[in-house]
Amino acid sequence: MIFSGASMEYRKLKDEDKDGSTVEDDIENLNGRPLLGAPPNTTGSSYNDHPKWKTKSIVTLLLTLLTSSQSILIVWSKGAGKYEYSVITANFSVEALKCILSLLALARIWRKDGVTEDNKLSTSLNEVILYPIPAALYLVKNLLQYYIFAYVNAPSYQILKNLNIISTGVLYRIILKRKLSKIQWAAFILLCAGCTTAQLDSSSDRVLQTPIQGWMMAIVMALLSGLAGVYTEAIMKKRPSRNINVQNFWLYVFGMVFNAMAIFVQDFDAVMNKGFFYGYTWITMLMILNHALSGIAVSMVMKFADNIVKVYATSVAMLLTALVSMCFFEFHFSLAFFLGSTVVSLSVYLHSIGKEQSRAK
Amino acid sequence: MIFSGASMEYRKLKDEDKDGSTVEDDIENLNGRPLLGAPPNTTGSSYNDHPKWKTKSIVTLLLTLLTSSQSILIVWSKGAGKYEYSVITANFSVEALKCILSLLALARIWRKDGVTEDNKLSTSLNEVILYPIPAALYLVKNLLQYYIFAYVNAPSYQILKNLNIISTGVLYRIILKRKLSKIQWAAFILLCAGCTTAQLDSSSDRVLQTPIQGWMMAIVMALLSGLAGVYTEAIMKKRPSRNINVQNFWLYVFGMVFNAMAIFVQDFDAVMNKGFFYGYTWITMLMILNHALSGIAVSMVMKFADNIVKVYATSVAMLLTALVSMCFFEFHFSLAFFLGSTVVSLSVYLHSIGKEQSRAK
Repeated sequence: MIFSGASMEYRKLKDEDKDGSTVEDDIENLNGRPLLGAPPNTTGSSYNDHPKWKTKSIVTLLLTLLTSSQSILIVWSKGAGKYEYSVITANFSVEALKCILSLLALARIWRKDGVTEDNKLSTSLNEVILYPIPAALYLVKNLLQYYIFAYVNAPSYQILKNLNIISTGVLYRIILKRKLSKIQWAAFILLCAGCTTAQLDSSSDRVLQTPIQGWMMAIVMALLSGLAGVYTEAIMKKRPSRNINVQNFWLYVFGMVFNAMAIFVQDFDAVMNKGFFYGYTWITMLMILNHALSGIAVSMVMKFADNIVKVYATSVAMLLTALVSMCFFEFHFSLAFFLGSTVVSLSVYLHSIGKEQSRAK
Repeated sequence: MIFSGASMEYRKLKDEDKDGSTVEDDIENLNGRPLLGAPPNTTGSSYNDHPKWKTKSIVTLLLTLLTSSQSILIVWSKGAGKYEYSVITANFSVEALKCILSLLALARIWRKDGVTEDNKLSTSLNEVILYPIPAALYLVKNLLQYYIFAYVNAPSYQILKNLNIISTGVLYRIILKRKLSKIQWAAFILLCAGCTTAQLDSSSDRVLQTPIQGWMMAIVMALLSGLAGVYTEAIMKKRPSRNINVQNFWLYVFGMVFNAMAIFVQDFDAVMNKGFFYGYTWITMLMILNHALSGIAVSMVMKFADNIVKVYATSVAMLLTALVSMCFFEFHFSLAFFLGSTVVSLSVYLHSIGKEQSRAK
């Protein structure tokens, strides 16, 4: 509704990557050990573990707030005029900044605790070989994005992106082999329906005229995005004791590599002629900082919570953003937004009931 | 969306009254005996009682099908041109027809089983004194309806009518003292949100400009309608062994009385000048028959199931109608309708999960 094409893409491109904390007590059921027999627990972690519950809440809140302020920054910067800078160089800058922040956090830890097996930067090929995959998936997704607009208009694309919610749920179940209860599945589909409802406007029905190629591409992109999210979670949780900053460092290094490739392919001439930082303003800087922090928050959510929590946090953030935008930028408050928000709120409530019930079993 | 003002009112006016069956095994927790301590069971009846479950399913299906065909008849008759007949005389005819059908059913029972304490038509003042109340509530509601259009336009009114769902749930809880589980409450709010979403079109946002008087009247009307439904259920279940046809007979007699009053107040001149059946066509007859049968199905649902089941049945019927209308009358299939239907379907699913869980406790 209030977000259009490129700017949201910028956000999306970034917000599924990676951190800065030192909490290290996550023991997750992964590596193909499904929770069969055990109660379907969304988080896979022990619920009596109070400090972990706290960490999870804090990172979730952090992600929600950062994602909200992200979109508000985008709306704000739009109000100030069209983007002058290259989005791809900004993406690269975000990856680089996240890399630097991870290294700074690591340096602090090394000074305090010394270098251990879990926080050393050097890695085995066996460990690092999986790290490029999320970045590669995003690259493919972003390349596809240039073609999908031949079949799908921008507002329809915003609506189709809600398929990400469903694809994340399905891949979370299939690849991470984590169970959601019946109520949680219903809540997840409601989340998707609610987010879409909140975005409805008079032109939304055009999405139904999307040709089959458009649908196929949207589904493939949703799967790529879901796969990247699920893959990141798998990486972060594969070795729970591994310091998150080291994991982030390697994720972001590959993010830099793939974004550098994208610059060469798509923006090389412009960057050569105008310079790398052409068109950057202080709002651009603020957005890059915000995206870097959001990316780190996503990493933390992936390590200490999961993809489901991430989807909820970003969806609630979407609604918060719209609400703030309505107050500050005089956007139109619609009945569809109210209904969609109600459905999303009930989805959050039902998800928590579903979780409580699996605990109580 | 596809239903407008008067015709739907006609339906609404009628469909909360009354029957024709002879099943008589319903033992409900009522008369202020809340189900405290006991698991919150929507139906209040024993779930192992298979024949009752069957009766309940059949009457629910019946109501859904009759309500659906009702709206389709309305759309159909509209296609054939504007109503020529007086809606109030049609309402009276429906009450009279239901009265006749109840008496016919009773005559058959008397011939078969003889006259017993439970199926005799004569009644005590103590028993019959409650029967005029639903009809009186509908009368007040329908009088209010003439004034609400000063503040609310017709499409907004269609949307505001979904408040009936919430008011029925709240009054069901407060007056009948029946508990809904957390999941069932969430499902009920979703039902309201889903129905409203399915009705969204480009002009729906105007409902947000409804002045405070309009909102107040809409809420009062929703409460009156909910109260009439809850009251009917209380009457039908007060004496479970009482034959439903006798209960219906008395309900419909008062329905006739109050509709006769309405004719005198509002349509007396027209009826005197043009005649009672002026403008009736065979579609009008069909609609009257359909409304009478729907009314009887509502009575059966009230006796053998409850208000919650009724609200679900009529909501699903609303969606079925819209779907059939889209196929046969080339209505526009909207994304909002798809999303609303998804939310309503999930609401039905969650309601049944909530019921299962309270049974399992």
